[in-house]
Amino acid sequence: MTPPKRRAVPVATEPAYEVRIGPGVLDELGEHLGDEPCALIADARALELHGAALDAAPALRDAPRLAVGPGERAKRFAELERALDFLADARLDRRATVVGFGGGAAGDLAGLAASLYMRGVDVVQAPTTLLAQVDASVGGKTAVNLAAGKNLAGTFHQPRAVLADTATLATLPSDEWRSGLGEVLKTAVLTGPELLGWLEQHADALRPDDADRAAEAVAQCVRHKAAVVAADEREAGRRAELNLGHTFAHAIERAAGFGRVPHGVAVSAGLGLALAAARAAGVLEDEALPARVADLQRRLGLPRDLAALNADLGTPLDGAALLAALAHDKKALRSEPRFVLPVRPGQVRLGVALDPALVARLLGAA
Amino acid sequence: MTPPKRRAVPVATEPAYEVRIGPGVLDELGEHLGDEPCALIADARALELHGAALDAAPALRDAPRLAVGPGERAKRFAELERALDFLADARLDRRATVVGFGGGAAGDLAGLAASLYMRGVDVVQAPTTLLAQVDASVGGKTAVNLAAGKNLAGTFHQPRAVLADTATLATLPSDEWRSGLGEVLKTAVLTGPELLGWLEQHADALRPDDADRAAEAVAQCVRHKAAVVAADEREAGRRAELNLGHTFAHAIERAAGFGRVPHGVAVSAGLGLALAAARAAGVLEDEALPARVADLQRRLGLPRDLAALNADLGTPLDGAALLAALAHDKKALRSEPRFVLPVRPGQVRLGVALDPALVARLLGAA
Repeated sequence: MTPPKRRAVPVATEPAYEVRIGPGVLDELGEHLGDEPCALIADARALELHGAALDAAPALRDAPRLAVGPGERAKRFAELERALDFLADARLDRRATVVGFGGGAAGDLAGLAASLYMRGVDVVQAPTTLLAQVDASVGGKTAVNLAAGKNLAGTFHQPRAVLADTATLATLPSDEWRSGLGEVLKTAVLTGPELLGWLEQHADALRPDDADRAAEAVAQCVRHKAAVVAADEREAGRRAELNLGHTFAHAIERAAGFGRVPHGVAVSAGLGLALAAARAAGVLEDEALPARVADLQRRLGLPRDLAALNADLGTPLDGAALLAALAHDKKALRSEPRFVLPVRPGQVRLGVALDPALVARLLGAA
Repeated sequence: MTPPKRRAVPVATEPAYEVRIGPGVLDELGEHLGDEPCALIADARALELHGAALDAAPALRDAPRLAVGPGERAKRFAELERALDFLADARLDRRATVVGFGGGAAGDLAGLAASLYMRGVDVVQAPTTLLAQVDASVGGKTAVNLAAGKNLAGTFHQPRAVLADTATLATLPSDEWRSGLGEVLKTAVLTGPELLGWLEQHADALRPDDADRAAEAVAQCVRHKAAVVAADEREAGRRAELNLGHTFAHAIERAAGFGRVPHGVAVSAGLGLALAAARAAGVLEDEALPARVADLQRRLGLPRDLAALNADLGTPLDGAALLAALAHDKKALRSEPRFVLPVRPGQVRLGVALDPALVARLLGAA
């Protein structure tokens, strides 16, 4: 029997690193850690389910471990102090490596703690959710939340390596799996015909327990994001395209109360809204794109628009609350919200200001 | 009457910036801030004494202000959250500039908050103590303290500009003035004959209310530090020379209880210990250096060694406590302490491991 395929995607940031993708890649942790001192900051549930895989790395076997979470609870500011105190109490020095293990929240916290501890120690990220593997694993963004909003305090801190072990996806709750699929779908629209076509061919077969097919989807997303991030490490320009669907999605997450709508599910509805906005604003050139996206959303179990999301939620989101949440987006503080709108597969328009009446109508607030 | 001289020292970090030095340079704040939104994070006492000088900048007149401190209290972890919440509540966006105003602690906090807020906004530093002007103003180090030790959480975040207004020094308490002189003296030993000679010529005339002479001392220190930092921005090598006297100084500060011995005063005693260690270890080549330094220490009102510091303190520091504190230095966690030792003016040896018996004897623990 041939072993499952492993993929390596280089990320040409400064410094450069590799994302290793596939079932079982956690067994490479040992190579990356050597015998330097290290510490683990891990989502408690990921540790319980998949912690045994970490024992393959000798450096981790007796390393200090901090369990965080669940989910966004890992990103409270107080958790950052707890993580930093943990590293200091472990008496790690500047040569130490922090290993982040779990979903995006645990990785964000681990990355931020690593970037601050002694003004920066290395971090190796081992994301265990589809969302974290396709999205948070590339780009070096770290953050915690403030009272005023999500991800308001953070750094850019490129990891030394990322190990996206798709075998860990088998235990993902359905909502988290769908959340990852929302980002995969967004990436497919951004990358253009290739991933969009692949997704149309494989959508029905994409399952948490098919680690090899998931690895192919992850690799395609990571390749795209790596190209964008390498061109714009500090989000000065092109990197903004990754926010396709996100201005609406953040408003949805905020209006619903954070944690109620999984991020990627909100992105799917946000993508639907961005397509509708692009059509109404005359930005959309490929008239067939909305139907192709809607078909994929149906097959992937994702909401195609706000109405579908509201139907899933039971109690519909209030239009006025969505509008207020939109004004609160961190990219829009003190200014009008700007949108990334699709033009055709593989092409978006950045920084579009929309007619407030159109936005109100799209959000059901008119 | 000719206006007092202003000095500009370029710092070739990435990005590069200038340190403007001299009485009255705060009137240049307006040029640096333009009319972009900004916020002030300031030491409460500096704001009270010198806040009027900030009104020269139109952008600051109605800007949100956060008063912090006094002193090291600004560097508690909870103050970092308060500073970040303050920036978010002011609804600043990514184009905002944070102005740090006060001593090193306020500047460290302002710099760290700026580097984290939305993953990094600009900071302009306006240091108002001699210590901050000669030391903290160059190098981009930011930090807060953790329970386990000082400066354990921070970033490298280069300011957009530094305005060292030496007119603000006139109100410095004597201890803080001497603290700055300790770093000036250390720098003189590091830079070599030029600043050492200048200091020997001007030591008696260096006074808080002679803003022009102070500016000359600050400029010489900043020029030296700028050269070192530009060559080694992330403290991988040569930058370590700036820690001359600091391994001992940190142990003194810790053993005395932080805040009891001003940093630069501890550095002066640490410099004396480093000279004694260098002589005992056969590292010192210029036999005349210890006497020259001791003469300057006497004229500047600084302790020449541990005995002199203990005499100042009344209750002598315990040798065993000093040894324990030395083992706790953040640069020495999990390893033996390493020392920067003087060889001759302008030359040090880095990373020297000393015979533990010698260290114990120097600290009065043998």
